[in-house]
Amino acid sequence: MRYHKIPDETVKRLPLYWRALKFMSAQGETHISSQKLSDISHINPWQIRKDLSYFGALGVRGIGYKTKKLSEKIGDILRLNGTQKAALVGVGNLGQALLKYSGFKSYGLEIIAAFDKNHKTIGKTINQVTIDNISKLRELKRSKIHIGIITVPEAEAQEVAVELVNAGVCGILNFAPLYLDLPKNVTVINIDIALDLALLPYYMPAKLVARRYIGK
Amino acid sequence: MRYHKIPDETVKRLPLYWRALKFMSAQGETHISSQKLSDISHINPWQIRKDLSYFGALGVRGIGYKTKKLSEKIGDILRLNGTQKAALVGVGNLGQALLKYSGFKSYGLEIIAAFDKNHKTIGKTINQVTIDNISKLRELKRSKIHIGIITVPEAEAQEVAVELVNAGVCGILNFAPLYLDLPKNVTVINIDIALDLALLPYYMPAKLVARRYIGK
Repeated sequence: MRYHKIPDETVKRLPLYWRALKFMSAQGETHISSQKLSDISHINPWQIRKDLSYFGALGVRGIGYKTKKLSEKIGDILRLNGTQKAALVGVGNLGQALLKYSGFKSYGLEIIAAFDKNHKTIGKTINQVTIDNISKLRELKRSKIHIGIITVPEAEAQEVAVELVNAGVCGILNFAPLYLDLPKNVTVINIDIALDLALLPYYMPAKLVARRYIGK
Repeated sequence: MRYHKIPDETVKRLPLYWRALKFMSAQGETHISSQKLSDISHINPWQIRKDLSYFGALGVRGIGYKTKKLSEKIGDILRLNGTQKAALVGVGNLGQALLKYSGFKSYGLEIIAAFDKNHKTIGKTINQVTIDNISKLRELKRSKIHIGIITVPEAEAQEVAVELVNAGVCGILNFAPLYLDLPKNVTVINIDIALDLALLPYYMPAKLVARRYIGK
């Protein structure tokens, strides 16, 4: 079930805790304190304790949390313990990088289909996935894939998104820098690298900033 | 100056507003309501009004905000109106995608140097940037570049980060899935695509989730 009582801001931090717990568990640590979890995840200990308390995980003073049990619990909440199949559309540089990335599996996700319209790209095999002609997107319906990853140029993203939804996709990871206009029952997570990048100058040391901004 | 009174959560949303305002301004709209800004940015109108009020931007009822003035103001706060030079290290698939991405400039950033250790990659020119041998990273100091973008594999990221800092970099955009251990005066923004991806199953419609998770 969805844990409706968990605030979205907390949900966003859960993958960080999950990864840190997996890491500690692999190192043979049976327990972990909120302070240690903070050292790895770079989130305040009090924030961690509050976040984890939303689903009843309470650490024991002086001992901490049970590493394995807590990572399983978070994995269950985020539904990372199963394997979801995904289709990727747009095998340019970013699409290729994602296809070659081996880390998705540990997040319960496997890209098993990829599409492009470039005839030089169609037919190639990357990481055991053979790239199909984008015109075959509608045949995706048969393979029961519910997650789509969009790495096409901005101008093509909306059309591709609609085709994915028509083919049965209801969760989309969108790398194109625009908001997709889709039915409400489709979940879209937008990843816009430039927006993160735009935060960098703001947080950089003031001494390096051009004088004209100072004192404004 | 840094607007210390602006909460970080608000700062994170400013690039979204900035992009929406630029878009509306380009369409010739002199004013924009919080509702319209909400339609484009997908953030609640009340949240927008609260965010903008932190730096004194108050809309006029029935008229809204002045599009151009507000976008300039946000650009000043985020320091996006200048041009900052950046160096990219690791020209694999992701690095290439970033080098080819033309959108950085509108965020006040220009990648003017790139490094790799692969001899097949060194010497190639992508988007007017010729890829240098990573051994020349220390010579970066002369070019007064203060922003580094790390797209090397996880195992090499820490070492590269230290070299960048030694070469005068104080702002790092890190795509490797680990926390960099660096001096406090270095700003690091971590971009971990897999962590965003990990949120997708959680937000997907419950009907598609394996039965074993239901009722837990």
